[in-house]
Amino acid sequence: MNRVEPGLVSLVGAGPGHPDYLTLKGLRCLREADVVFHDALVTGEMLALAGDAECIDVGKRAGRESAAQDEIEEALIASSRRGLRVVRLKGGDAFVFGRGGEEAMALSAAGVPFEIVPGVSASIAAPALGGIPVTHRGVSSAFVVVNGADPDAFEELVSGIAPGSVTVVVMMAFGARGAIASALINLGWQVRTPAAIVAGASMAGAFTWRGTLAELGASAVPAAAAELPGTLVIGPVVALPLSLADGAPSAVEMRVAHVRA
Amino acid sequence: MNRVEPGLVSLVGAGPGHPDYLTLKGLRCLREADVVFHDALVTGEMLALAGDAECIDVGKRAGRESAAQDEIEEALIASSRRGLRVVRLKGGDAFVFGRGGEEAMALSAAGVPFEIVPGVSASIAAPALGGIPVTHRGVSSAFVVVNGADPDAFEELVSGIAPGSVTVVVMMAFGARGAIASALINLGWQVRTPAAIVAGASMAGAFTWRGTLAELGASAVPAAAAELPGTLVIGPVVALPLSLADGAPSAVEMRVAHVRA
Repeated sequence: MNRVEPGLVSLVGAGPGHPDYLTLKGLRCLREADVVFHDALVTGEMLALAGDAECIDVGKRAGRESAAQDEIEEALIASSRRGLRVVRLKGGDAFVFGRGGEEAMALSAAGVPFEIVPGVSASIAAPALGGIPVTHRGVSSAFVVVNGADPDAFEELVSGIAPGSVTVVVMMAFGARGAIASALINLGWQVRTPAAIVAGASMAGAFTWRGTLAELGASAVPAAAAELPGTLVIGPVVALPLSLADGAPSAVEMRVAHVRA
Repeated sequence: MNRVEPGLVSLVGAGPGHPDYLTLKGLRCLREADVVFHDALVTGEMLALAGDAECIDVGKRAGRESAAQDEIEEALIASSRRGLRVVRLKGGDAFVFGRGGEEAMALSAAGVPFEIVPGVSASIAAPALGGIPVTHRGVSSAFVVVNGADPDAFEELVSGIAPGSVTVVVMMAFGARGAIASALINLGWQVRTPAAIVAGASMAGAFTWRGTLAELGASAVPAAAAELPGTLVIGPVVALPLSLADGAPSAVEMRVAHVRA
């Protein structure tokens, strides 16, 4: 019989990338942790906040995604049962395409104590750091966040949304941006709808492109930025005259290109 | 001629309420601030982090909303021009129904240096703290965030969304929950669609109700919780078997009622 008290597992959203956007509770969890299971995107700068904790990269590897997910859940449960204070650290927020719900259900089913520590989601923060508000009085009163990794699933989802009715934020969409733009245009979205790419918001090498839906597919992005997580924003909020001021830290971090094809 | 160097204005998202969900950058901004202009919902516990800064409540007052917004923008600009380090502290994220875009545009037009500091939005964090993931593999691959303060505008917006296709998160919707439920049912949403209210997530007195769309309008919520900011979540993610474990801090803070009418 196992007489060790199980350790608390915290599912922590790390925010868009830079430790600036970690929450105070997220920081406290990292400092208390014995072991941190983190995604591939979490940087060394973030992990340095975890002090002496063991940090284990459980980032998804091509070709074995499902196995890895099971293994992650088993590792979280096993570590808790060894009495360790566990942090599961995910980019953005664990519940926005982060599979946090699956991990929470596995922990719940195993009777392991856990808590959810919301983070700053890139779905809102990436546009914001690129100078784009997802809502704006008189321009957009709603936004939809959708996963773009599978263009067919994307098309099916957005086919239920009236063209132009809401701001569309597409995550994990960088490689599929041409297919995504075509799908929206085929569904009746205006080709001149403003569109943006925000790559690696808050990270080194962050890059923002602005243009139209017609131009999105052929948008040129530096090779280095293409390796960073990319968020698309589609809707009139992209064209608001809201420039980040010169000299402000956010503007320094971000190279903004107003490219017109 | 004014020879004072203008002070940086930081538009900071405070998160859902508790200082636990403030970001590290948000904390740094508060500590550096000379003056903090904050919303009515920001608590004294949060403002205590601002040290010696002057804290000015510019929360909206009934009957003079537009005037107040102009006054806020003028006050931010004037403080910057006096050389002060300024923080504009808003609940959640400044760009999710927070009028941050308007303030950023006013600062930009006035040539005042500013930066945007994204926060944890209650649109995602309130459901999460209530144990509800806005996305979940195989259940929901998209979510829409919409303002419920004006039920007519809400109905027009959601009329463009195919019933049941996405998770719907409705903010500032507590008082209008009956009208919102009726609007969705009239648009073809199933009456048995799972629905939840999360009131005051992360705050003292937080309360979560779960039921169905049919039951939402008549849902009973304690009077104290009804005074807190309320977020509605509508969709099958509400019914996922994801209980926050007993003893975990988030669960202690949150009284969860599984009410079936």
